[in-house]
Amino acid sequence: MRVIETVREMQAFSESVRMEGKRIALVPTMGYLHEGHLSLMKEGRKRSDCLIISIYVNPTQFGPSEDLDKYPRDFVRDEKLAMNEGVDVIFYPSNQEMYPDNYQTYVNVEGVTNNLCGLSRPGHFQGVTTVCAKLFNITKPHLTVFGKKDFQQYVTIKRMVADLNMDLEVLGLATVRESDGLAMSSRNTYLKQDERESALSLSRSLKRAKELYEGGERNAATIIDEMRALIEGYPHTAIDYIKICDTLTMNDVETLDRESVVALAVRVGLPRLIDNYVFGDSLEL
Amino acid sequence: MRVIETVREMQAFSESVRMEGKRIALVPTMGYLHEGHLSLMKEGRKRSDCLIISIYVNPTQFGPSEDLDKYPRDFVRDEKLAMNEGVDVIFYPSNQEMYPDNYQTYVNVEGVTNNLCGLSRPGHFQGVTTVCAKLFNITKPHLTVFGKKDFQQYVTIKRMVADLNMDLEVLGLATVRESDGLAMSSRNTYLKQDERESALSLSRSLKRAKELYEGGERNAATIIDEMRALIEGYPHTAIDYIKICDTLTMNDVETLDRESVVALAVRVGLPRLIDNYVFGDSLEL
Repeated sequence: MRVIETVREMQAFSESVRMEGKRIALVPTMGYLHEGHLSLMKEGRKRSDCLIISIYVNPTQFGPSEDLDKYPRDFVRDEKLAMNEGVDVIFYPSNQEMYPDNYQTYVNVEGVTNNLCGLSRPGHFQGVTTVCAKLFNITKPHLTVFGKKDFQQYVTIKRMVADLNMDLEVLGLATVRESDGLAMSSRNTYLKQDERESALSLSRSLKRAKELYEGGERNAATIIDEMRALIEGYPHTAIDYIKICDTLTMNDVETLDRESVVALAVRVGLPRLIDNYVFGDSLEL
Repeated sequence: MRVIETVREMQAFSESVRMEGKRIALVPTMGYLHEGHLSLMKEGRKRSDCLIISIYVNPTQFGPSEDLDKYPRDFVRDEKLAMNEGVDVIFYPSNQEMYPDNYQTYVNVEGVTNNLCGLSRPGHFQGVTTVCAKLFNITKPHLTVFGKKDFQQYVTIKRMVADLNMDLEVLGLATVRESDGLAMSSRNTYLKQDERESALSLSRSLKRAKELYEGGERNAATIIDEMRALIEGYPHTAIDYIKICDTLTMNDVETLDRESVVALAVRVGLPRLIDNYVFGDSLEL
């Protein structure tokens, strides 16, 4: 396994791999790898001849009051985990390498980023799409694998790739959960012991939404109200949003008469956790 | 020579050319080809194994009150000219192919687009960078060739390519001029007979700027004032801007103590013509 830190070397490597007719998969990450990331790598490994992961805590997707500085990092541990998954290359650039002086170009996806985290975290998706456009140009993948835990991010990346005619496949994989249902996230490490139980309110509220849906409920407000009440029953929780959206446009829906996703963001103590459920999908809790 | 109208076919063609180890050059155009375009093609031909040109009048770079509908088009003539230059492929997509329903992604270069045409034509450069990002992803060139007649466009594309780590070379070629000095432009066809002489005021004002510079003048305002007076001496002229800018940032300069460009936009009758001169360069008039 190689660790590559410069754009020039990464591009030369990827170009030579492509010229050999080999298929490249990229798993972009911010490091501090967990089982969710590992599931993306396993799938990328299966579907490619060359598996690249990027580890880069991208400053442009953090707001000024967000957790950029204290975002958890452990490159030595990440390196071992990547090695175990058969990763060929970790692309591990510095901020200066990614955003040199005089940097001034941004990619914006407009429609699908307007709701949910796009409202709560202004500039977040511009940071995500910009860094992903860069990572795709640097690592030249045939396939990139994202987790659907960040559902709006997944939809946004798919939209960017289609709109800008990036010639690569975007694969979205189901959220990986702890045995008790908590969606895997690097930010779970922020949870204090007494907040850990409250963090389960997210997945439990999704389970309740699924039951209501399967019982025939199609009114979005009714489902959201029940979820809200359930979450508010736990200490340390502060709901940012609970919304039910059209999975194509990410616009709010009133009635679940098309493919819809319920997505929520809840602050549990310090960390802001997100989770979601696409109605009709399975949900293993 | 092939004409390809779909993204999918163009990408498959370019990918197969790349896999043969051949070098691709792209000359993006809006058609109605003139000697300026042909000079770009000749250079692209020399430096590549496969020369692609795109012919696409990109609606997103025209403002609502601009000349999109009446922009001159003649595909049959363009096809012959391209054939004569040894073009391998004309990429000739429809609007529906380039901007299908639900399209919503844009590339923005911030700093260098703030001045000059970025002020006069809001949204213009967003349209240019977005369509060029798409064209690069569709045709997968190693090299792209632009004319420096659109100097700010050239600087903007170079900035985008560098910032987004697009792995291709951007070559800028000198403006091609009519024998009397008028910069070649598809929009010159709008000029009525009595306006044609007035259109020479642009290149003549640049020649005057060059003379002043070579005589030791370094004050931007002095140079601009002389150019303005010269142009206003011609009938049918309405100056949009005359500015002297740092070629790196495109910010105005007061004193010509770094590489600077004088750029101007002048309406001559109907058409809005642009031209420029980088101080220190040659200017064949």
